[in-house]
Amino acid sequence: MIIDCHGHYTTAPPEHDDWRTAQIAAFESGQAPPAPPAISDDQIRESVLTGQIKVQQERRTDLTIFSPRASGMAHHIGDAAVSARWSTMCNTLIHRVCTLFPRNFVGVCQLPQSPGVAPANCIPELERCVLEYGFVGCNLNPDPSGGYWTDPPLTDRWWYPLYEKMVELDVPAMVHVSSSCNPNFHATGAHYINGDTTAFMQFLTSNLFHDFPTLKFIIPHGGGAVPYHWGRYRGLAQDMKLPLLTEHLLQNVFFDTCVYHQAGTELLAKVIPVKNILFASEVIGAVRGIDPESGHHYDDTRRYIDAVPWLNDFDRQDIYEDNARRVYGRLSAQISRQFSVGNR
Amino acid sequence: MIIDCHGHYTTAPPEHDDWRTAQIAAFESGQAPPAPPAISDDQIRESVLTGQIKVQQERRTDLTIFSPRASGMAHHIGDAAVSARWSTMCNTLIHRVCTLFPRNFVGVCQLPQSPGVAPANCIPELERCVLEYGFVGCNLNPDPSGGYWTDPPLTDRWWYPLYEKMVELDVPAMVHVSSSCNPNFHATGAHYINGDTTAFMQFLTSNLFHDFPTLKFIIPHGGGAVPYHWGRYRGLAQDMKLPLLTEHLLQNVFFDTCVYHQAGTELLAKVIPVKNILFASEVIGAVRGIDPESGHHYDDTRRYIDAVPWLNDFDRQDIYEDNARRVYGRLSAQISRQFSVGNR
Repeated sequence: MIIDCHGHYTTAPPEHDDWRTAQIAAFESGQAPPAPPAISDDQIRESVLTGQIKVQQERRTDLTIFSPRASGMAHHIGDAAVSARWSTMCNTLIHRVCTLFPRNFVGVCQLPQSPGVAPANCIPELERCVLEYGFVGCNLNPDPSGGYWTDPPLTDRWWYPLYEKMVELDVPAMVHVSSSCNPNFHATGAHYINGDTTAFMQFLTSNLFHDFPTLKFIIPHGGGAVPYHWGRYRGLAQDMKLPLLTEHLLQNVFFDTCVYHQAGTELLAKVIPVKNILFASEVIGAVRGIDPESGHHYDDTRRYIDAVPWLNDFDRQDIYEDNARRVYGRLSAQISRQFSVGNR
Repeated sequence: MIIDCHGHYTTAPPEHDDWRTAQIAAFESGQAPPAPPAISDDQIRESVLTGQIKVQQERRTDLTIFSPRASGMAHHIGDAAVSARWSTMCNTLIHRVCTLFPRNFVGVCQLPQSPGVAPANCIPELERCVLEYGFVGCNLNPDPSGGYWTDPPLTDRWWYPLYEKMVELDVPAMVHVSSSCNPNFHATGAHYINGDTTAFMQFLTSNLFHDFPTLKFIIPHGGGAVPYHWGRYRGLAQDMKLPLLTEHLLQNVFFDTCVYHQAGTELLAKVIPVKNILFASEVIGAVRGIDPESGHHYDDTRRYIDAVPWLNDFDRQDIYEDNARRVYGRLSAQISRQFSVGNR
């Protein structure tokens, strides 16, 4: 089985985003949000059959760990109540996708974060999604301000109540920023990658995994700049008299394969241990074109992994499936549950 | 000749930083700054003979393009007057180093930036350093706020007066942030790398080099995350219907080789054209230890370049010398001038 651990519902029916627009307008004018939109099962089927499932079939992948559109989270808009209402609607929509296509999608939730609001407020929605919907993880935004980085680092005790619940539920978080309202940062070209690099360095300079030995994070987009600067990070840790990164972080921190060229993927596979790499494509995501140099989609990451010459079948089994089953502690049981039902 | 385009005076005599501490304290208590410290030529000689020149000799490099300590710029501290005074002192000290060792160092200046203050205020100091001191470039901080990114992007007209002067003087800028006062960002592990990535994406999404066809920037630290995500950047540009990056940016944007492991350096040399790569080590800089995997210093970047199997002598001549002479338009004349004098 080939599991893509990083897919967002970027093709949701337009009524969903229209509601969000209306919600924001209502907030700004001090009115109550509108009633939820009516979105039919057929609309949802259409949106993924022509989108993510079509791509799964074309690229011979099996299952996508699926979450709301990352740029749509926009935790900096409105307040905690606005964020909570929007998160609930997004997560419920993901649940409907997973219910309609239980052999194609397993859910991961958006959290109702809001700048300056303690992350403990996310616990009820996380519990709801994991316990009621069978979701296997969450997306955690290290910068709810949307590019001004005004909340404490991920290693601050500010975040600990949420981590306690993640550990209790045995769910990891993908560290994933949302859109940027700071004109300095292009979202998918700078803010996303910076968020990844920043989170890794926060982990490196902390004792977080001493406090939470079983807490797990996936850093997306191939780990931001981290594998490219692996020597820098090993050297910085050494100068700080820290343990080797393999001991200090790599029991808890994992990287996805959303790197959109062969040379970058090979660097990832060369410097990061195979056990820490999870297959992902971000499909349908930030980059949608066909690379004229290869003749294939930039984000057809399976081709890159398949073409790394020194990986053997056992390595690929780890990257494509087994690592995801280890990192997402509830995934195997959830797959069994969902596969016993079948697509509707 | 082997030219290292990225060296900072991290070993300045302690009186220099002591004065800075006193300057900040005076500003905070509303008093006049103290008198400049007395730093002797012998102190300066000692500081580089046991530091940067020793490393040059050990690693068989010839000339360092030398600027004040990047983390020391700290443009977010004080106000424009504080920044101006500190920049003048830092640049004057660099000039003294270059005067004492004209065969080892050519100067690049710090700019008196200050958050919220128009960069045009940097023009007099840039002119002074280039015209009086023979400096060949400047370090430009894309985030004078120190990690909150509150000023306009580098592509905003806010910066244009400074760019006009850079073009007139034929000096490039290295895009280099300073220390971070935002607890989210470790300086050398996150803020530096993020600054590089951010600047590149600002350039990508702009028409800056249409407006300034001869303006040149060096992005340090191997270009941040950019080469690792080169497919992402090519794909994003393609989705935006922009020209190929080679045409759109690579006449104006260059990358240094401050990447501290062999695999990362090989990625850089694989995806970025040789003409866009300038040798650099950041010595004595962010990472000071010896890599137990190689037995050599992490920042001994010459070893990595020498070991890239597919580079030939012409490529290395470009990377080690000729590209720097092209990008720093005043460098060759300045080298001739300084070498005609000789070390004192």
